[in-house]
Amino acid sequence: MNIEMIRAAAARAAGHIRRTPLLHSPALDALAGRRVWAKAECLQHTGSFKARGGWSALSAMEPALRARGVIAYSSGNHAQGVARAAASFGAPAVIVMPADAPQAKVEGTRAYGAEVVFYDRAGESREEIGAALAAERGLTLVRPYDEPLVIAGQGTCGLEIADQAREAGIARAEVLTCCGGGGLTAGIALALEAERPGFRVRPVEPENFDDTARSLESGARQRNDADPSGSICDAIVTPMPGELTFPILTRLCGPGLVVTEAEVLRAMGLALRHLKVVVEPGGAVALAASLFHGDALEGGDVIVTLSGGNADAHTLGRALSTL
Amino acid sequence: MNIEMIRAAAARAAGHIRRTPLLHSPALDALAGRRVWAKAECLQHTGSFKARGGWSALSAMEPALRARGVIAYSSGNHAQGVARAAASFGAPAVIVMPADAPQAKVEGTRAYGAEVVFYDRAGESREEIGAALAAERGLTLVRPYDEPLVIAGQGTCGLEIADQAREAGIARAEVLTCCGGGGLTAGIALALEAERPGFRVRPVEPENFDDTARSLESGARQRNDADPSGSICDAIVTPMPGELTFPILTRLCGPGLVVTEAEVLRAMGLALRHLKVVVEPGGAVALAASLFHGDALEGGDVIVTLSGGNADAHTLGRALSTL
Repeated sequence: MNIEMIRAAAARAAGHIRRTPLLHSPALDALAGRRVWAKAECLQHTGSFKARGGWSALSAMEPALRARGVIAYSSGNHAQGVARAAASFGAPAVIVMPADAPQAKVEGTRAYGAEVVFYDRAGESREEIGAALAAERGLTLVRPYDEPLVIAGQGTCGLEIADQAREAGIARAEVLTCCGGGGLTAGIALALEAERPGFRVRPVEPENFDDTARSLESGARQRNDADPSGSICDAIVTPMPGELTFPILTRLCGPGLVVTEAEVLRAMGLALRHLKVVVEPGGAVALAASLFHGDALEGGDVIVTLSGGNADAHTLGRALSTL
Repeated sequence: MNIEMIRAAAARAAGHIRRTPLLHSPALDALAGRRVWAKAECLQHTGSFKARGGWSALSAMEPALRARGVIAYSSGNHAQGVARAAASFGAPAVIVMPADAPQAKVEGTRAYGAEVVFYDRAGESREEIGAALAAERGLTLVRPYDEPLVIAGQGTCGLEIADQAREAGIARAEVLTCCGGGGLTAGIALALEAERPGFRVRPVEPENFDDTARSLESGARQRNDADPSGSICDAIVTPMPGELTFPILTRLCGPGLVVTEAEVLRAMGLALRHLKVVVEPGGAVALAASLFHGDALEGGDVIVTLSGGNADAHTLGRALSTL
């Protein structure tokens, strides 16, 4: 992995991926006690940054192989990113999703023409199901984070952050990322290492799913014991940091941060009120950390990813009730 | 009024006003039966396009006059636009707001340091209160739409629409605007007349407040009889088209469109789900027309303004319940 792969992914993405805005609100600054800059990937195609990695992977595939089809496993955002890219290239896509995935994500994935195969998050392995289907139908597996092309695609978000921080006159900042397997975090960290070495990336996770924070602290990959179906942060409750992503995080990131579900819902409500955007729970952890864990941050500027916005109406209603 | 005034306003706005994104969702296209492009002014500073007009007016004022202070009357969006610009220039601002203005707008206005004076929408005249205070304190009145500098500021939104339509490859389109006094509609119409003469602007209003549609049809300015405090579309329930704006609308706009409150709430819900943005009722009428009044539109592309996003939690809850 290197910055040239990210720059190449950005070139392939031109005209197909949105440059999402870096939002800002005086009211949130006042709450946080520092300037908060929000990279609104909820406004990306498919409603999350995963459109970047999906596009990067599919756009770099050998056309004949791509035409046979792709497969991905995902709680819904990587699903839509891969499905959208596959649809654009006219390639079939099969997506393996947990049976309890949010309805909005299932519908979104199907709307891009993908075939959805469900599995039981507690009892079955999505990796095994994916591998079996890939072998049976000759599909290429597009991994959600342990795949260099996908990390490079997510890194294009980091290139934009670097540019937009320059435009906003931000000299130094902590950059808080919503972290599951670490693809977005690794991509942004690599981009900023090259473009803005004074910036420090900090992964943020929900409580009970803080594998990355514990892994960074211990120096070795740790697992989560909790049942992922019990979390509202479905997008980022992966079992452990990735094999490819973790060494990048170890080399480039500061300590991880951990937030509660109550903080996540409140951050979602404040994003609706002050930033006028819909953020899903897993995409709101970084904003929650910036607002409610300021003691753990340094400096006058913090940049947060609002990684996705594919929230169900019921969850948005819960977020509104915190206001 | 001419295009040079709008270009000058755009030059003064550089670095102070956001270029808001033109959002797009395949799901909304499918519902509308044509491509729907949404100009997300809800993501503008202060949560509405009114930041443009406020900035345009204040930035063009003679500094000594500006330093004495400004006054505006507004249900809340023009209030925040003027208050933000005044705060940036270090000028005092007094805002005359209806006593039933949404709480989010009152708080937003005060957060920019403005003094808020309430009036009774049914029994008092905001124009008279504004004029009296202006005389008493030596403040300059910044009118919400019947002011060339304000129309020019709102027109900068039209310049961006012209650019973004080119980038998106849109050759011809109907452009639906959320219309109260007609400042945004007139500004956009003037900008597009110069930049994209193939585009046609269509004002959209809520039922019972369709003064512009009736005025365009009859050729003379008509009044609304309904009580504005009975509408959820507080931002655009002005009594009649403006003296300056109406001749521009007559010359440049196609027939007006009228939507119901149920359609507005459903459009707000669909914006939350598919565009991931918060739109207030008065800012959702154009989207509602594009989705539910397609029979009255021509061509394969429709551009709508999402004019503002300053909605209260209660109203957002009602919008979510339509999903």
